[in-house]
Amino acid sequence: MKDLKSLTRLIDSFARLPSVGRKSAERMALAVLEMDEEDVKEFSSALEGVKTAIHLCPICGLYTEDEKCEICSDKERDEKTLIVVSSYRDVYAFEKLNTFRGRYHILGGVLSAVAGIGIEDLNIDSLLERIKDDNVQEIILATNPTIEGETTALFIAKLLEGKGVEITRLAYGLPMGGHVDYADSLTLNKALEGRRKL
Amino acid sequence: MKDLKSLTRLIDSFARLPSVGRKSAERMALAVLEMDEEDVKEFSSALEGVKTAIHLCPICGLYTEDEKCEICSDKERDEKTLIVVSSYRDVYAFEKLNTFRGRYHILGGVLSAVAGIGIEDLNIDSLLERIKDDNVQEIILATNPTIEGETTALFIAKLLEGKGVEITRLAYGLPMGGHVDYADSLTLNKALEGRRKL
Repeated sequence: MKDLKSLTRLIDSFARLPSVGRKSAERMALAVLEMDEEDVKEFSSALEGVKTAIHLCPICGLYTEDEKCEICSDKERDEKTLIVVSSYRDVYAFEKLNTFRGRYHILGGVLSAVAGIGIEDLNIDSLLERIKDDNVQEIILATNPTIEGETTALFIAKLLEGKGVEITRLAYGLPMGGHVDYADSLTLNKALEGRRKL
Repeated sequence: MKDLKSLTRLIDSFARLPSVGRKSAERMALAVLEMDEEDVKEFSSALEGVKTAIHLCPICGLYTEDEKCEICSDKERDEKTLIVVSSYRDVYAFEKLNTFRGRYHILGGVLSAVAGIGIEDLNIDSLLERIKDDNVQEIILATNPTIEGETTALFIAKLLEGKGVEITRLAYGLPMGGHVDYADSLTLNKALEGRRKL
C-alpha cells in the first residue's frame, strides 16, 4: 500500500494514539477503508466534536460539556472538602469508590524539572480562590507517591500553611492483597513508619 | 465520564475498529481529548481523506488513489498471468514474496451462502473481460483453502472451462517449518495426495 498517501496519513494519525503500534495503526486504517462512508463520517465528526464540545470546568479543571462539571454542579457534594489530584483520571478512580462525597481539584500535572512543568503551569491559583471563596476546611493531597507527586504535594502544603485549612495526604503502605515479601523496601518502610495500633 | 456525550460518541467510533475493545476505545478517546487541536483536525481529515481519495482499481479491484492501481499500470508486469484472490490483503501477501511478476484480480469476497454472498457480488464479470481483452494464458486461483474459498475456486474454474486459459490452484500441503505430528488430518491428507517424486 506504499503508494496510497491518504492511507499513510491515516496510519500516522492512528499511530499517534497511546499503545497503538505501526502494525495496529495499519490494521485500523485498513478497517476504515472498508467501513461504510457514513460510519467514517460519524467517526471524523465525533473526533472534532470531542474537541469542540468538551472543555475544562472553570472551578475544578475536570472535563465537561456544560458550564460547570457534574461534580461542581452537584449541590449535594460537600464543597468544604477537596481532593487535589494531578489528573482527571484520578478523579474517576476516586469516584469509583463511591464513598467520597466532597469535591475535587485537578492540578493538570505535577511539578517536574525534567518535563519543565512549573507552578505557573498548574491549576493552583484557582485552588487558592476556592479555599477563600468556599471556606474549604480540608484539602486531601492525592498526587501520586512519586518524586514529582511528593514534591507537588509538599509545595502545596507549604503554600497553604496558615490559611486555616487542614492539609492531609493519602496514607502510604502495603497495597491490599499484596505480599510483604514482594513489597519494595520504600513501600515497606512507609508501611512500618505509618503503623497503627490495633 | 458518563455525562460527556461527545466522548461516548467517539468511544463508539473507536470501538467499531477491529480488535479494539471498549476499554481500549475509551483510552483512545481520552487520548484524543488530550491531543493538540491541530492533530485532531488532521486525524479527522485523514479519515475522510481515505474515503474520498481511495477507490477500487477498475481493472483488478485493488485499492488505488490513481486511475489504475500501481500493479495494473506497471507495464513491466505480465498481463497474461493472473492470480485471483478474494481480498486485497492477499495481494500484499504475494507482493511481499517479490517473485511473482504477473498481475492480480481481486474478487472482493468469496461465495458464501451463510453471508449471503452470491456470484453477482463478486468481481467476476471484469475477470471474464480481462481474459478476453488481455489474452490471459494462466489463471492461478488463490482463494483460501476453506470451504468458501474452495467453492469459489471451483466455481470460477467451471466458468472458465473451454475459454482456452489454463486454470491452476495453489498447492496444498504442510506449511514450511511445520511439524507432521501437529498438522491437522485434512492438511496431512492433502500433503499425502499431492506428494511429488524427489
